[in-house]
Amino acid sequence: MDFDALFTESLDALKREGNYRIFAELERRAGAFPRAISHDAQAPDDVTVWCSNDYLGMGQHPTVIQAMVDTAHACGCGAGGTRNISGNTHQHAMLEAELADLHGKDSALLFTSGYVSNWAALSTLGSKLPDAVILSDEKNHASMIEGIRHSKADKVIWRHNDPEDLDRKLAALPVNATKIVAFESVYSMDGDICPMDEIVEVAERHGAMTYLDEVHAVGMYGARGGGISEERGLQDRITLIEGTLGKAFGVVGGYVTGSAALCDFIRSFASGFIFTTALPPACAAAACTSIRHLKESGAERARQKEQVRKLRARLDAQGIPHLPNDSHIIPVMIKDPVKCRQLADILMQDFGIYVQPINYPTVPKGTERLRFTPGPLHTDEDIEYLVQALATLWKRCALAHAVA
Amino acid sequence: MDFDALFTESLDALKREGNYRIFAELERRAGAFPRAISHDAQAPDDVTVWCSNDYLGMGQHPTVIQAMVDTAHACGCGAGGTRNISGNTHQHAMLEAELADLHGKDSALLFTSGYVSNWAALSTLGSKLPDAVILSDEKNHASMIEGIRHSKADKVIWRHNDPEDLDRKLAALPVNATKIVAFESVYSMDGDICPMDEIVEVAERHGAMTYLDEVHAVGMYGARGGGISEERGLQDRITLIEGTLGKAFGVVGGYVTGSAALCDFIRSFASGFIFTTALPPACAAAACTSIRHLKESGAERARQKEQVRKLRARLDAQGIPHLPNDSHIIPVMIKDPVKCRQLADILMQDFGIYVQPINYPTVPKGTERLRFTPGPLHTDEDIEYLVQALATLWKRCALAHAVA
Ligand SMILES: Cc1ncc(COP(=O)(O)O)c(C=O)c1O
Ligand SMILES: Cc1ncc(COP(=O)(O)O)c(C=O)c1O
Repeated sequence: MDFDALFTESLDALKREGNYRIFAELERRAGAFPRAISHDAQAPDDVTVWCSNDYLGMGQHPTVIQAMVDTAHACGCGAGGTRNISGNTHQHAMLEAELADLHGKDSALLFTSGYVSNWAALSTLGSKLPDAVILSDEKNHASMIEGIRHSKADKVIWRHNDPEDLDRKLAALPVNATKIVAFESVYSMDGDICPMDEIVEVAERHGAMTYLDEVHAVGMYGARGGGISEERGLQDRITLIEGTLGKAFGVVGGYVTGSAALCDFIRSFASGFIFTTALPPACAAAACTSIRHLKESGAERARQKEQVRKLRARLDAQGIPHLPNDSHIIPVMIKDPVKCRQLADILMQDFGIYVQPINYPTVPKGTERLRFTPGPLHTDEDIEYLVQALATLWKRCALAHAVA
Repeated sequence: MDFDALFTESLDALKREGNYRIFAELERRAGAFPRAISHDAQAPDDVTVWCSNDYLGMGQHPTVIQAMVDTAHACGCGAGGTRNISGNTHQHAMLEAELADLHGKDSALLFTSGYVSNWAALSTLGSKLPDAVILSDEKNHASMIEGIRHSKADKVIWRHNDPEDLDRKLAALPVNATKIVAFESVYSMDGDICPMDEIVEVAERHGAMTYLDEVHAVGMYGARGGGISEERGLQDRITLIEGTLGKAFGVVGGYVTGSAALCDFIRSFASGFIFTTALPPACAAAACTSIRHLKESGAERARQKEQVRKLRARLDAQGIPHLPNDSHIIPVMIKDPVKCRQLADILMQDFGIYVQPINYPTVPKGTERLRFTPGPLHTDEDIEYLVQALATLWKRCALAHAVA
């Protein structure tokens, strides 16, 4: 059988649709972020990154780097085993304690990524709890969707950020079902924030467990970076808070926090936790340092909010439409995969501005966009340069201005 | 609903069976491996690790650590995004090129772990290829099993390492099915090695794709560490070779290698690849350095084989039974979860020997074992000390000697 022909056929279809992905090849430079070296022949050597999820630049923070370096020198690189078989180190234990404290929970459990934490936790809860029904916000992230699917539990989709729809759907379930309400705080592609109070209230009324993904909020919201649930004082009322160490914390890894019994349950039964090499101690130590820093320091958060506000204001002044929301994410809708890629290519090649075109399957077809994530390290000049470049392009491409 | 009561109930059942897991808390010390600091109150402060999957001690190799440190200094900690959205760095590209070369393939694709590489690749192949049937060795690893299950493709289990059974099962399938034969080279818990020649021949005869997990063989077998498929000259005849960077290479991460179209296909469609933060560049650089070292140097492999041979001989001399196999893994069967834990506890507390009891679900119930992985850094004295400790325990516990 000619397998390559099968693969090529599917890839050709992607190419025809404009959905074939070309990765930009960067070289990050500690101390220079959001500047990076580009290894792409068509781009300038130096580019400014406008689409990173290292939202606060913590990936290059000197104390975070130092923690990684010191731990690599002291302990070596890998963990050398699964958490159960020789891979459980002091650095993992410290990090889990730090995460439990961050979210005001008894316990935390570390995974190799946020993706794996969602997938493993939801698939374990859904498959092991009696008569489980998972009520999933329709815009939940792929990692949650795959976890729910893998659990084979009954699944009910509720309308995005709509507590009334959730209420109706919970009410329709048998009383003895184990109900799990799964949702996110900040939705990463539209940047909208959920009505957490209402959702929690509805869930409580129906005796449902709440499963909250704070991946795009940890480090950035709340007085200590505990996310939207901290900001709104709801940490105690949420059963499980999930997050990542790879975005605002600037390293890699994922986790869940909750009661001691909950974390022990997932630790004991989740295939995606049990059967995989633990994170390198150096990564755990770096993440721990980053979390500690952002618990104490609000400067990065304040400056990020400021730069987000400025970019929005400057886009408005130029009549460049962007999706309104209360978060740090600024989506500029293009609604066509080919145009989106072209705009991104011009920004990269002519202006040294790197913003990845966001296309299917990350967003639904027809909602392609440029997604800007201003951070505390983008200067006012960076913002002005970006806005001028976009304004030039908007004219050049004769794209409609001010379309909501 | 009292969720904690549900969790506690399941945990109590594990405890009653003796299958509740207690992780040893270690602190690795670069330069001292296999020695480590123990943070457990009952254990001595210094212990010797006998169950690490950092098989060759590469996790503490000075050039590997230096690569991690240098890259952290130069580029910072995290990648800052998914591979598509700003997380694709020069270090990832270099590592993928190195991996493709290692296995004599066109391309390679990096994942956050070996678990994710198996899960994501098999679930993508199984779900996207027309009329896919996955023929899975009955002892395949959890990550493959979950990937196959997630794909929803038809699944046929064949008898462990039995090419004749595979042949019969392939023959029974419709001609137009897309057949994928999934198996491992070294099975990690029994340490047996598959009859790769015969399996490949059978697969070829039926026009089936071969999917090979070399997780416990890469770095350790073959002249350049390309695994059993390199050692036996079969790299070219296997469609996809999967491996980890977290065991013999001493860092973290996983990968698949194969044709350019195959890797591009998985890159383009695998949820577990697309929707997750890329590995830190510092981890990619460290892994790359480790692979390069083991391509050139056979010293670690030779010394490992030597120490494995010595431990086996000394166990035999003391009449301590162990599973025979052709690999580097020495399982000493205990066949009871409680006894297995007790023996491991005594070894740790009285002798400073750390070997994790291996119980369900890592191995089937009733096949609990101590699994020793001698490496090039275990001295002859370490081996003698271990064997004497085991001999003492064997007497003390009056366990049957020389039971096959
Ligand atoms: C909402 C959400 N959850 C989970 C993840 C996965 O986290 P990680 O990148 O740590 O795998 C992502 C993105 O990557 C995400 O956007
Ligand atoms: C056969 C096999 N495949 C895959 C894996 C997963 O690799 P990783 O530890 O890199 O996730 C393991 C063990 O962890 C394994 O034993």
